[in-house]
Amino acid sequence: MKRQNLIILTGLIVLLPLNAQEKKYPERAPMTPAMTEYWQPQPPVVTPDPVPSDAIVLFDGKNLSQWENSKGAPAEWTVHNGVFTVKKGTGDIQTKQKFSDFQLHLEWRIPEGIKGESQARGNSGLFLQGIYEIQILDNYRNETYVNGQTGSIYKQTPPLVNAMRKPGEWNTYDIIYTAPTFKKDGTYRTPPTVTLLQNGILLQNNTIIRGTTPYVGFPEVKEHGPGPIKLQDHGDPSQPISFRNIWIREL
Amino acid sequence: MKRQNLIILTGLIVLLPLNAQEKKYPERAPMTPAMTEYWQPQPPVVTPDPVPSDAIVLFDGKNLSQWENSKGAPAEWTVHNGVFTVKKGTGDIQTKQKFSDFQLHLEWRIPEGIKGESQARGNSGLFLQGIYEIQILDNYRNETYVNGQTGSIYKQTPPLVNAMRKPGEWNTYDIIYTAPTFKKDGTYRTPPTVTLLQNGILLQNNTIIRGTTPYVGFPEVKEHGPGPIKLQDHGDPSQPISFRNIWIREL
Amino acid sequence: MKRQNLIILTGLIVLLPLNAQEKKYPERAPMTPAMTEYWQPQPPVVTPDPVPSDAIVLFDGKNLSQWENSKGAPAEWTVHNGVFTVKKGTGDIQTKQKFSDFQLHLEWRIPEGIKGESQARGNSGLFLQGIYEIQILDNYRNETYVNGQTGSIYKQTPPLVNAMRKPGEWNTYDIIYTAPTFKKDGTYRTPPTVTLLQNGILLQNNTIIRGTTPYVGFPEVKEHGPGPIKLQDHGDPSQPISFRNIWIREL
Amino acid sequence: MKRQNLIILTGLIVLLPLNAQEKKYPERAPMTPAMTEYWQPQPPVVTPDPVPSDAIVLFDGKNLSQWENSKGAPAEWTVHNGVFTVKKGTGDIQTKQKFSDFQLHLEWRIPEGIKGESQARGNSGLFLQGIYEIQILDNYRNETYVNGQTGSIYKQTPPLVNAMRKPGEWNTYDIIYTAPTFKKDGTYRTPPTVTLLQNGILLQNNTIIRGTTPYVGFPEVKEHGPGPIKLQDHGDPSQPISFRNIWIREL
Repeated sequence: MKRQNLIILTGLIVLLPLNAQEKKYPERAPMTPAMTEYWQPQPPVVTPDPVPSDAIVLFDGKNLSQWENSKGAPAEWTVHNGVFTVKKGTGDIQTKQKFSDFQLHLEWRIPEGIKGESQARGNSGLFLQGIYEIQILDNYRNETYVNGQTGSIYKQTPPLVNAMRKPGEWNTYDIIYTAPTFKKDGTYRTPPTVTLLQNGILLQNNTIIRGTTPYVGFPEVKEHGPGPIKLQDHGDPSQPISFRNIWIREL
Repeated sequence: MKRQNLIILTGLIVLLPLNAQEKKYPERAPMTPAMTEYWQPQPPVVTPDPVPSDAIVLFDGKNLSQWENSKGAPAEWTVHNGVFTVKKGTGDIQTKQKFSDFQLHLEWRIPEGIKGESQARGNSGLFLQGIYEIQILDNYRNETYVNGQTGSIYKQTPPLVNAMRKPGEWNTYDIIYTAPTFKKDGTYRTPPTVTLLQNGILLQNNTIIRGTTPYVGFPEVKEHGPGPIKLQDHGDPSQPISFRNIWIREL
Repeated sequence: MKRQNLIILTGLIVLLPLNAQEKKYPERAPMTPAMTEYWQPQPPVVTPDPVPSDAIVLFDGKNLSQWENSKGAPAEWTVHNGVFTVKKGTGDIQTKQKFSDFQLHLEWRIPEGIKGESQARGNSGLFLQGIYEIQILDNYRNETYVNGQTGSIYKQTPPLVNAMRKPGEWNTYDIIYTAPTFKKDGTYRTPPTVTLLQNGILLQNNTIIRGTTPYVGFPEVKEHGPGPIKLQDHGDPSQPISFRNIWIREL
Repeated sequence: MKRQNLIILTGLIVLLPLNAQEKKYPERAPMTPAMTEYWQPQPPVVTPDPVPSDAIVLFDGKNLSQWENSKGAPAEWTVHNGVFTVKKGTGDIQTKQKFSDFQLHLEWRIPEGIKGESQARGNSGLFLQGIYEIQILDNYRNETYVNGQTGSIYKQTPPLVNAMRKPGEWNTYDIIYTAPTFKKDGTYRTPPTVTLLQNGILLQNNTIIRGTTPYVGFPEVKEHGPGPIKLQDHGDPSQPISFRNIWIREL
């Protein structure tokens, strides 16, 4: 740097403190990598195959010993060939065990050759904590009201996309559910939320559930505790839905 | 209580029903089912197999045409047998395309017979929008600092569990990412969030990402727009990690 | 404790390190206070009195120069004695300026001696971004449907409490509003939220606004950008509401 | 419209049903206003003046009967002229009652003529649930590290602005606090959050509290239940801070 420039620059340096650079703030003290590393507690080890080692298997292909009907009597749906199938008129079935926050895996199949349209075609439902319905329906080339199609929070929020497989093929549901907490007056302190993937494709992304999912009228908020996984016998004329490979991990 | 008072009180009790119960609130008018049913817009139809029909395939087993190195030159990692493998010293690679909100599927494999411990064993990383690192590491029977193990938001949030498969086996990552929005001052208006499943098991549940994921020091918040998927060449001595079957769906 | 037991217990203590404590994890490296202190950027200085120095004064007691009617013509409500009053039949008025995220302060007064009941008593409304109505109504000893009372998100969410002052007294509204962001399909990516204090008492606590606030039917979600503060001319027969001291801070 | 145009338009109309209009979806059934109106439960009536009628008055200007020191002994701070003042060396004081979710109002004053700079000038603190510190400090023309200035979540999140009144004047704090909930492993299921207004100006907007607020090191997450409001005796040489008009409403 030449002398002349230096003088000018010095002038600048002298002036600057009177303006912007006058204010010199302390720097954050330097750190070492180990300061941001912590070793405990180590997350639990979960072996993923064939089902997660910390999962409760709700159906292993053999029997419905983990399920009951809504009156507490044995579940009467039909077990055959490693799957179970809705038995019309025997009513909904639900797990004996109750859950709060969970990850749930479940597979379901619409029978090949199914007939009917809109809601009258392969209609069932999965009730989170026995209360909040995630629709199960054959929407393969079958349109219905969008807040009632497969993967909707029934009569509330439609799915992001329609990711149906054909009748006769198995669909998977992977669900992450967070239970609500309640205020003293019985309203939600924190609402329930659900993330849902069907066949590996995102349908609900941490969606807030606004209350119950009635056929007629609005969602309502009612205080409740842990609840079962419930599956719906929709009472449709024929062509029942089948389920298999159901497990749940408490979060 | 004196007799006289009692009488008066009784009078009040008798009167109360004429007051308190007098207040009859209107009932909500009854509704019909069709009032809570809407048909439009119909969610897009996405066929799920073999990859979602609306996904951008980032690696189809043949070449790295969708990827580049951090200088914009062709990605030099090794493609072989339908997978690609980190080529030590060639640097990180990233997608040419940039993304905001997305669902990402990716599979990765630690080589069989890997050696080393803690972070020095099968170390790579997946950077969301090129910035936020989700750790990739061999944590099969290998402990490290928990906010640096596989599935952690690096140096921030450990995974809920350790769901590793053995070296030589493929691990899957299914990621749902929501990009941040920024205030005028460059801080987060809404922070980025991530949900992560490894091998189908939940590791991160809509976890808030607090900023960058540096090796030394704190997360920092810097304004940014859409960014690539970036994979890390960690420069470890040997035993490189392989990847396959990568697709992304913009949300 | 007997001597013999004490000896056994000591033995246990000696043994413990060989079991549970066998696994020794690295400690996080010690830090200094200055590592967690940062000095920049310094938050802006805002002098609070008489109104926040960074606020836009929307009504200073003199004129309605900041307001217009919904057709863009001059606002015709009546200015007098430092306040302005709804002028029946001249229509809603709204700010010329449009806003996104903001803190809003506003005062309103029900005229003394007001008559009528339920919704027919001192009815107006404050529309956030010109769209989402926060109810303004005389609910002093006047009940109505709770999702339509003062401080409700109209036809959506009732206020936590009824904190009305008497007719003739001024009520304050302090509002913190976060505007929605939208997905490509026009639905909310992040919904609008509102915190509301009336007379210093919490009525809405970061409540999610679910869509528009129509008199008939459901909330609807329509994409929009910044919008004005709008005040409603409800067209009621007489006894109009007055406003004063309105300022807004962009967040 | 000219005849020729009409013909073309008619052609369009004829074609449309074969394309876009081919698909006719059912309309949502029309509703009446009363269907979206519900009357129960009526929100509690709270009279706002002079303090909210449902508030617990924690200091009414007379004595510290609602407070104790951290050992459960009587609070020794000085009550005078309707206010109380930190008594150096007597330690922090806290409410005897414990709280979860709440709205808190509190006023504090830096003594006129205060000296010192950065943290050594009018330093106290308000601990939510006895754990999470909201800084109280004289930042009137006194800069410090921003995550340690008045209205910061100490060593975590700086306030949006600096809204200090001069020494000798009273500052108000209005706080809305949501307590955390915990998972079985002791980590947050939902984190604590806080909204803070100082002198009516927003400093924290539903900010997530990430854990404890230590002077050295990182926020830590420790399971806890309801806790007191705690005020800090920072032990500074002189010029103590005063408080008055403290009330809390449980949410």
